Amino acid sequence: MAHHVVVVGGGFGGLHAVRGLRAAPVQVTLVDRRNFHLFQPLLYQVATGGLSPANIATPLRHILRRQKNCNVLLREVTGFDVQRRKVLCEGMSLSYDTLIVASGAKHSYFGNDGWEPLAPGLKTIEDATEIRRRILSAFEYAEQDLGDTDRLSPWLTFVVVGGGPTGVELAGALAEIANHTLKHEFRHIDPRRAQIMLVEAAEHVLSVYPRDLAAKAADSLHSHGVEVRTSTKLVDIQPDHVVLETNGSREELATKTVLWAAGVQASPLGKALTDATGAETDRAGRVMVQPDMSLEGHPEIFVLGDLAHCPGPDGKPLPGLAPVAMQQGSFVAQVISARLSGKTPPTFHYRDHGTMATIGRASAVAQLGGWKFSGRFAWLMWLFIHLMELVQFQNRVLVFVQWGWNYITRNRSARLITGGPAEPASSETDYPSQEVESPA
Amino acid sequence: MAHHVVVVGGGFGGLHAVRGLRAAPVQVTLVDRRNFHLFQPLLYQVATGGLSPANIATPLRHILRRQKNCNVLLREVTGFDVQRRKVLCEGMSLSYDTLIVASGAKHSYFGNDGWEPLAPGLKTIEDATEIRRRILSAFEYAEQDLGDTDRLSPWLTFVVVGGGPTGVELAGALAEIANHTLKHEFRHIDPRRAQIMLVEAAEHVLSVYPRDLAAKAADSLHSHGVEVRTSTKLVDIQPDHVVLETNGSREELATKTVLWAAGVQASPLGKALTDATGAETDRAGRVMVQPDMSLEGHPEIFVLGDLAHCPGPDGKPLPGLAPVAMQQGSFVAQVISARLSGKTPPTFHYRDHGTMATIGRASAVAQLGGWKFSGRFAWLMWLFIHLMELVQFQNRVLVFVQWGWNYITRNRSARLITGGPAEPASSETDYPSQEVESPA
Repeated sequence: MAHHVVVVGGGFGGLHAVRGLRAAPVQVTLVDRRNFHLFQPLLYQVATGGLSPANIATPLRHILRRQKNCNVLLREVTGFDVQRRKVLCEGMSLSYDTLIVASGAKHSYFGNDGWEPLAPGLKTIEDATEIRRRILSAFEYAEQDLGDTDRLSPWLTFVVVGGGPTGVELAGALAEIANHTLKHEFRHIDPRRAQIMLVEAAEHVLSVYPRDLAAKAADSLHSHGVEVRTSTKLVDIQPDHVVLETNGSREELATKTVLWAAGVQASPLGKALTDATGAETDRAGRVMVQPDMSLEGHPEIFVLGDLAHCPGPDGKPLPGLAPVAMQQGSFVAQVISARLSGKTPPTFHYRDHGTMATIGRASAVAQLGGWKFSGRFAWLMWLFIHLMELVQFQNRVLVFVQWGWNYITRNRSARLITGGPAEPASSETDYPSQEVESPA
Repeated sequence: MAHHVVVVGGGFGGLHAVRGLRAAPVQVTLVDRRNFHLFQPLLYQVATGGLSPANIATPLRHILRRQKNCNVLLREVTGFDVQRRKVLCEGMSLSYDTLIVASGAKHSYFGNDGWEPLAPGLKTIEDATEIRRRILSAFEYAEQDLGDTDRLSPWLTFVVVGGGPTGVELAGALAEIANHTLKHEFRHIDPRRAQIMLVEAAEHVLSVYPRDLAAKAADSLHSHGVEVRTSTKLVDIQPDHVVLETNGSREELATKTVLWAAGVQASPLGKALTDATGAETDRAGRVMVQPDMSLEGHPEIFVLGDLAHCPGPDGKPLPGLAPVAMQQGSFVAQVISARLSGKTPPTFHYRDHGTMATIGRASAVAQLGGWKFSGRFAWLMWLFIHLMELVQFQNRVLVFVQWGWNYITRNRSARLITGGPAEPASSETDYPSQEVESPA
């Protein structure tokens, strides 16, 4: 009977671990509750109508169809029995010899869980289509509430909470939609009047980036029409407004659309794992791992990616980025192979190839090695690198075509409001059918 | 104040009416409860993972952005007040001078409304992603129920009810998925063992087609691995089986996946309209119209497309096909323009360019003018015509690329199970991790 490796989670980390084991004398079972791998760095493009879900999601079975030593199992994992070496799923359990847990992170509302329905985060395909529905519906409601500025303004005010890469990308894409994509499409409102605000509690957006690059990103957002509010805390979210606090003074802002990009916490499987093994977690719920990603006292259990607290060279935990998870996944596969063949396992060194964030049409910031880039060149580089990763991994020629098309036409073709009909926005009115002119 | 035309429904009929009025001295309001026009002839491709929803759906605002005399309103119409000439929506009403109702059809379960959740039909984007979810999940459940043939077989049995074009296309695409797309992707089941059954109450599939062409379609389905059961009535649907009746003898067939393509009925707005005007409906709920598509006693109200019962040259009502709706839409626009300029309105003649249905990879049947085609040539023709319509109407170059890609690779890249996690299929079992061989 072959050594059985169970991998929980088909994200970047889990998938790289599975692929790293393709020539090892093991049987691999990859368990995921979804049937696809999601290319999360481009999820904001789905949320803003630029790409279809299937453009950035590929069936796990399809990716792994040629890897004969791997089973894919579509199940939700509920816990672990580490004494009996079993992964527990609903109605089923899986025996393992080695366990790799890479179930990632979800968004965190810092204890304000009531905010979730009012300010959706962006982690899943369903999140993305829900955000897309809200953004597009807001413009539709504004169009119907014509003639009543008090009612109009909250529909045309968009608040993005959190100035990390996801928040910056969402705000930039929102500006693109309001200023270009929807131009000519409404008769009673001018979408360019939309107010897009990016709220960040820290002093700067993109706080992990070098200060000058972060400043360039803020400038670029500003020139795209985004109002960047740094040193500003979100105090409350209500269905029709948010409360912001800047330097101790509070302000109420009427808005119907709040998007959450402010923080993540580890998947609940982290807690299940620490309950079972006695391993510790950090404040974000990430599991503290040994230098080889295994758990103390449990060399047969590895944790990686967003779920792992793995100290980097500077002592700070490595960031929750795809390259970290990918490198850890490949590394753990090497460790397992080395153990089985009696060789000395390697040691892990994270190779930081840099980080990049896109802001909008032809604008991005990037730090690669010691180099910093911004503007159109950084955007082209961002585009090239993401396309290469997508093409290499998932054969996604279509994304390239779609982007080329969007760039030339400034259209975003995946602008569907799905998942339930739009709710009525206004009270009893007789729709004025005679307006023909655009107010702009 | 310009003459106000309200068009209810942005399908083929409504949209062609709107576009036909682009140069008329009128103000047009197009009301739809969805923000997009759906290219319904390709909806089965979404249901079977070949295309993404956005590939066949385009925002109505985008299609009409240059037509300055047209407003698009995202609302659900609830009724009509024909005395005061108002369209009633929730919380809003719209005054019209001329009304065009083209709200289409939905599927009909012939009084067995309890079947709907057990056998979804294919009319909306949500229907299509739900069917996609069920088809793909069935293979996933089968993979998990290995070793238990009794449980396996219902998951791998697919019943399509109704042998019209939609049923034939669904069954053909299902065969393609089982025999080609999913090959190599499972370890415990062989997807090619799936049984795909097309059930039709009449003596032949595609009963409106010439007999020899229908026979060719049945042969082609058979050679693709579809079991065609004609003269067979569906008597009951239960969560784990269906009851079929052939020549008076009943048979129970264990299946978990039943798809409904058996019949349609007019949109409920047909009834609302007849209640308001006294117009009559036929058995399918379609509104009886005058030769110029107007209602008797209400020359200012037109009904067209799937909602209208409009007799053809042979006295039978024109079929519920896109070309009928499109021609009626353009015709009604001409009638309105003629009335406003005091000219004699034209009379309606339906130009039948033929019908076609695709069966699977490189196989179709077509009747064009007096000509009949089948096989690969008919398929290429089908492809060409549909792409031309899509490209002309919606600039859908992407669909062409996607199809080329699917055809070459036999892949269907939009195979996402979305809309809620998969339910667990089996009871408590220990998943046998050691099987490596495929049973095939």
